[in-house]
Amino acid sequence: MKKVNKKNVEGSSPEGTKGVDFRPLIAKQFEAPHFYMRFFDIAPGGHTPKHSHEWEHEVYVLDGAGKIALKGGKEKLVAGDAILVEPNELHQFVNDGKEPFRLICVIPKPTED
Amino acid sequence: MKKVNKKNVEGSSPEGTKGVDFRPLIAKQFEAPHFYMRFFDIAPGGHTPKHSHEWEHEVYVLDGAGKIALKGGKEKLVAGDAILVEPNELHQFVNDGKEPFRLICVIPKPTED
Repeated sequence: MKKVNKKNVEGSSPEGTKGVDFRPLIAKQFEAPHFYMRFFDIAPGGHTPKHSHEWEHEVYVLDGAGKIALKGGKEKLVAGDAILVEPNELHQFVNDGKEPFRLICVIPKPTED
Repeated sequence: MKKVNKKNVEGSSPEGTKGVDFRPLIAKQFEAPHFYMRFFDIAPGGHTPKHSHEWEHEVYVLDGAGKIALKGGKEKLVAGDAILVEPNELHQFVNDGKEPFRLICVIPKPTED
């Protein structure tokens, strides 16, 4: 068993994000065999990049509320929501509220790892 | 994008559990391509089965505190902890506290699905 607390993981602000604290929780350092778990804390007014890629996301909303912007418009997300962003689906997470919008996001293990 | 809130997923108590409300969030119903996300609410005094299996778990502790029992003893888990339970590792989640112990647990897509 390998363990880390999100408080002890160094955060970064990946390219294309605004107001985002990104922390890889279960990733290369744990030699996770199939998928990686990451934490996003999106400040009010912040967002992730609007992009698409070949892999899916599985997201769980921990705290706050926000929106996911898709090709067809925006949908509200609240704590307790679990979503599947399909492979190749355009998406962006947006915090248009007044509280931190916090997510867990799981992705397949990147092929370059 | 497919979405569900955990409040709207029917809970069950899988065999070998005690005091557990188990809710599959992202699973077969979403045709998730690689991994499934599940929610566990373990009441005080409750536990999951002590078992091992060929697949890993990636777990995020949402609320409360508890323990994971492993071959070598028990380790404490608190909110914000992310853990990798390795393939074939004996494990059991135990709530020996006074508050609900809530987890997200991600597994590879079962081969029989």
